[in-house]
Order: sequence, then C-alpha cells, then structure tokens
Amino acid sequence: MQNFNFYSPTYFVFGKDRELETGSYVKRFCEKKENIKVLLHYGGGSVVRSGLLDRVKESLQKENIKTVELGGVKPNPRSGLVYEGIKLCKEEQVDFVLAIGGGSTIDSAKGIAAGALYDGDVWDFYSGKWVEEALPVGTILTIAAAGSEGSPDSVVTLEDGMLKRAAHGEVLRPKFSIMNPALTQTLPAYQTACGATDIMAHIFERYFTNTKDVEITDRMCEAVLLTMIKEVPKVMADPNHYEARANIMWAGMVAHNDICGVGREQDWGSHSIEHELSSLYDCAHGAGLAVIFPAWMKYVVDHDVMRFAKLAVRVFGCQMDYDDPKATALMGIERLQQFWKSIGMPSNFKELGAKEEDIPKLVENLFTKNDPVGAFVPIHEKEAEEIYRLAL
Amino acid sequence: MQNFNFYSPTYFVFGKDRELETGSYVKRFCEKKENIKVLLHYGGGSVVRSGLLDRVKESLQKENIKTVELGGVKPNPRSGLVYEGIKLCKEEQVDFVLAIGGGSTIDSAKGIAAGALYDGDVWDFYSGKWVEEALPVGTILTIAAAGSEGSPDSVVTLEDGMLKRAAHGEVLRPKFSIMNPALTQTLPAYQTACGATDIMAHIFERYFTNTKDVEITDRMCEAVLLTMIKEVPKVMADPNHYEARANIMWAGMVAHNDICGVGREQDWGSHSIEHELSSLYDCAHGAGLAVIFPAWMKYVVDHDVMRFAKLAVRVFGCQMDYDDPKATALMGIERLQQFWKSIGMPSNFKELGAKEEDIPKLVENLFTKNDPVGAFVPIHEKEAEEIYRLAL
Repeated sequence: MQNFNFYSPTYFVFGKDRELETGSYVKRFCEKKENIKVLLHYGGGSVVRSGLLDRVKESLQKENIKTVELGGVKPNPRSGLVYEGIKLCKEEQVDFVLAIGGGSTIDSAKGIAAGALYDGDVWDFYSGKWVEEALPVGTILTIAAAGSEGSPDSVVTLEDGMLKRAAHGEVLRPKFSIMNPALTQTLPAYQTACGATDIMAHIFERYFTNTKDVEITDRMCEAVLLTMIKEVPKVMADPNHYEARANIMWAGMVAHNDICGVGREQDWGSHSIEHELSSLYDCAHGAGLAVIFPAWMKYVVDHDVMRFAKLAVRVFGCQMDYDDPKATALMGIERLQQFWKSIGMPSNFKELGAKEEDIPKLVENLFTKNDPVGAFVPIHEKEAEEIYRLAL
Repeated sequence: MQNFNFYSPTYFVFGKDRELETGSYVKRFCEKKENIKVLLHYGGGSVVRSGLLDRVKESLQKENIKTVELGGVKPNPRSGLVYEGIKLCKEEQVDFVLAIGGGSTIDSAKGIAAGALYDGDVWDFYSGKWVEEALPVGTILTIAAAGSEGSPDSVVTLEDGMLKRAAHGEVLRPKFSIMNPALTQTLPAYQTACGATDIMAHIFERYFTNTKDVEITDRMCEAVLLTMIKEVPKVMADPNHYEARANIMWAGMVAHNDICGVGREQDWGSHSIEHELSSLYDCAHGAGLAVIFPAWMKYVVDHDVMRFAKLAVRVFGCQMDYDDPKATALMGIERLQQFWKSIGMPSNFKELGAKEEDIPKLVENLFTKNDPVGAFVPIHEKEAEEIYRLAL
C-alpha cells in the first residue's frame, strides 16, 4: 500500500426531505453569520418546475440568507457560464455558492467558487494549477452519478476548442451535500443509467492498479460494484423505487470521495479517453464510458489477467477457469458490457453517435495536455487509437 | 434506508514515517498559530522505549510547539487519569491534546479534551450528556483496534464501581490521525489479535440490523470482514508483514468512522455486554468480544436466519443450504469462532478468566444505565443472563 492522505470533510445530509434544512447548513458552514449572500446555481427547468428551487429558497429565507441566481448549466458544463458566475460573485460579493443539480452543476459551481477568489484566469486551474482558495460550496444533489458532491474535483469544457478538463483542490470539497434520493425518482431512465455507469467507472479507474496488497480498497471497490449490479435494475423496472435510489446515491458518493482509492495508484485513462467523446459529440459522459471502458479493458487485459479474473469472479459471479484464467477475465468484461446494455447504454461508436473518421481528431485532442494518459497501462497515441477502434 | 448525517472531517495521514510530520498537522489544526502548547498523552513505556515519543517531540519542536506530558494510560482507561489530565490542561492552558497510543490512550485524551473546556464533572458526558465543545485532539495510532482515531466516541472506566461507559460528540472526532502501520509491527500477537477482533466486532454491531434495503453498507461491512479474514493470519505468521498491517489498520478506521453503518439501525448490545467483562476482570476488550459475540449470535440467530446465512455465505465461504438456511447460519457462527480461536482468542468464560458465579453481578452492572441494551433484539436481564451462560 502506498502512503496517502485522506481528507473528506463534507457534511453529508442524506434522506427524504432533507433539502428543507438547506438554510441551517449554509449558516453553519459560512464564515459570516449575518448578511450572507448565496449564489444559487442550477441547470435547466426541472429544478424550477419540480418546486425544488422554491423549497430551497424558502429554507434560505427562514435564515435571512439573501440569494442571487444563475441557471442554465448544461451537461458537460461550459467555461462561459463559469466566467459569468465568477463575474456575478465578484459584483454581488457572494459568500457561498450553492449548486442545485447533478455533477455538471456542481462542477460549474466549483469553478465559479475557485474563480471568485482568484485574480487570474480560472482556466489556469483547468490547466494544472492547484486550487488553494475558493468560496465555500454546498450542494443539493439531483442525480447519482459524478460523485462531485463529495469530491475535490471539477470538470468543465472550454468552449474555445471544446476541451474538457479537470481542476482539483482540497477546498473544492463541498462543505455540505444534501442527498435526497427521492429527488432522483423523476429522472429519465437513460440519465439514471448514464449516472450508474459513471459510478461504476469511477470504481474501475481505481480498481485497475499496479499497487499490490490493497485488499481493503479492492473489497470496498467490489462492494460498490456489487451494490450497483443489484440495485440499478430495480430502478430501471420501477423509477420510484426509493430504497434502490438511496443505495445507488450513497454508492455514488462512496465511489468517488476516494475512500475506495486511497493508497493505490489509480488509472483514469478511460475517463480522459472518454472526455474527448463527450466534448466532441456532447453525449452523456456515462454513455461514453460504457463504450470506452470495455474497449480499454480488452486492450489492457493481458497486463494483469488475474486482476480481471478477480473482478469477473467476485463481482460478475463468473466461475474461475483455473486452466484458463484469461477466459474468466474476458467473461467478466463480457458480463459488464451485457449489464450496461441491459440498462440501455450504448456498446459502440455507432450507438453513441460517434464517427470512425473523427478518431484522429479525438486522439489529437486527447494528448494536448498529458501524454501518456492512464497508469495501469500508459496510453500513448498509438494505444489510444487502437482503443477507439476497439470501440467502433 | 434511514435518513442520516455523516460527517468524518478527520485528516488521515497514513503510511511509513508519517509521525515525523506531526508538528505541521498540529499547526494546521490548532486555532492558535503561535505559542501552541500540546498535551502529549500516552500509556506505558513502549512509546518511550521505541523512540516514538522522541520523534514526535522533535517534530513538534521544529514548529516551536511547547509540550506538557501525561503518561500512564492503562488498557480500559480510568477516569482518574482523565481528571488528572483535565487539571493539567487547565493549569497549563493547553491548546491541543495529542494522543500517542491505541484506543485507550485516544479515548482518555478525548475525555481530557472534553473536560478541559467544561466547568462541570466530565463524567456527565459518560452519563449521557452530549459533548458540544472540546479541545482539538490529534492522534498517532499504535494499534489497529478501537477505531477511535476516526470516531466521535470515548470509552472510559469510572474507578468508583468499575463502570465502563461511553461519551459521544462530533467534536470528539480527531482533527488528524497519523497512522503508520509499521508502528504496530512490535505488538505482541495477543494484542494484535484482540485488536483484530475488536475491528470485526465493530462491523458486526452494524451488520446485524432490522433496517431493510441497505445493500451498500452491507457490502462495505462484508468488505472489511473479508479483508480481516485474509490479512490477520498473515501478521500472526509474520508480525513484520507491513502490507497486511496496513490493510488491517485502514480497515480498523473504516470499521468505526461509521461509513459502514450509516442509514441503518445498529445494535451495540454485545459491546455493552462485553464492557462488563473487561470492567470486572480488566481483560482485553477484544478478548471479551470473542467470547460474547458468538454467544450473542447463537441467542439471536432465529430473529433473522437469512441475515446470518448471508454472512456465512458471503464472508465465511459457506455453501448455502437452501433446504436448511439455519444450518448455514450456524455454520457461519462456527467458522467465526474457529477463526478467532485460530488467532489465539478465547472462546469461553474459562479461557477468558471470567467466572460463572459473577453472572448476577455482570447483569446488575449492565443495566445500571440502559435497559434494554441492543436493537437487533432488545436484551433485558433475562436475555443477558442467558447470553453470559451461553458463553460459559
């Protein structure tokens, strides 16, 4: 096991109707106790139509907290709105940024929070500069997926060139996250499935490691995957299944606050490879991952056949073929792909709406920042091209 | 799943040689940045003899942090030393309490930290009053067991009557915990095994629940248990097995910071039942748990046979007997007892050094505070007596 630090100081407020307590948590985690001004940041109309925004505002009003609003976050959140939010925070002297939505909204809010206390260009943080200071962020989560409610990361797309990049910093961990599984019951099945895929992918990025002797985190990774395999089909069959929604929502946090990833080298190659797809085609990140991950797995399986066999046996219920461990390893990948198919995820470029002729462009964009991507097996241009081709 | 709050803001500093960074973490988490005075709290001579205390002091000196010392913590820490520590903190105007040791030392330190900012009798907190304010506590952990390095709890024994009681409060979570697995390599095998038993018991107290639909925490509980079953025999065979020590140490934190217990009713009956044993006989808490837990399990198995069968199959590798699930359930309990025996734990009163004739006294002490104890099956006097008898 590698040496590590683990620090996850987010206050998680989980369960039915918990958004009604928003005001008290803003007050608790805001340095100022009087005349607090909050930026309410959200996406499209569903937060408004469902009445969630009004419930949150009412809770804030009870604590005499003032608000300014910035809606309009899109999936794969754009730098333009982040710049707009930063301007608004500076003009209005905002004290606290409250994201109401999913990962895109939270990531956009984190970008705003970082930029609001920074004199330079916020894109510096998405180009490798560590975020050392930011306005406090709180979240009210409406989709189980990105894990941004507990993570120190923000992913934003620069409109100039459609480059999707990540910023990091301990201060980007939300001060509190309100997680009411009932808020996810109205999500379309496709979005639910994309979120579930993202959660599983966050585990795979950690599971595939070259670090030896990490049984505790291996087992915790498997715990999340086993939960997803049991619970996701329930919400596909019945979107109002609160209990399954609750398990998935908490699993989504556990999958990405890094409790499952400490002390081990992590990969993250597939996330980078996918980001180029969702950047270029504006497709859902989860859908892109469902296409890329099995391709990546088939490409790297020989690097550590026994780790893939372990996944196949422990998580996908395969029988170990002691004469041919690779057959077991491949069967695990096959079952993963079947599982994602069964919940409506695409399996290849065509189903995703991606095009073979764009592969050179995808590869080019991929390596504008880092070369190689990934750590389990370092991926350079040649390997990335082959992985994209395996996903055709 | 029940509604819950989860807040674990401890900064974990894990790995080899990390105690050399102690000074910088005290500075980070102390409100005062100059003229900081730390109480160094520890147990017997091993912290001194091993050179650990000197290394910590050197690290503190580098940051110009002053120290006062209070050693002498015993296993099952006593109220007397807590009162002494409180007096010292008040006289010396201590800013930060640093525990160097295992759960007993950390729990004693938490008691001191709570009492140092309280005008009343610190025992109020061990009699049900919530701790709202305390000096900041940091820990340098030397045994994987109690999980106090990440928990909001403190267990102390009142010398007058030898009553072992717990205090709780969010502020009792350590600000930081330094966890160097190498520091546990010099522990005697018996103490290592007692610690491992305690870790597993922390999971069982959470695993046996009446809350339905808690797959994510069920699976995380199982993750910890599976890790313990794999890793503990390695350190029994080779005390210097750093990697196994590392897995066990992190598992011990995960088992008790409550990430495995959120959203579910927990039991804690067996801990209460055991506390009377370690109070009366001053035996190791882990050893007492190895005696009590299988007895408790046999007593309550009919309450939820399928949950016990699940444990047997998923954790202890039993084959499910679909014609007779109870046979599977009982086999799981049997395998648990065999496992604990294999690492040198006692199985009954006699091996523990407890006496049948003391049962009435144990039962009497048990219910001085709460009646019933436990939640999975509420345990009153009659049931407690039967459980003690099953452990004979």
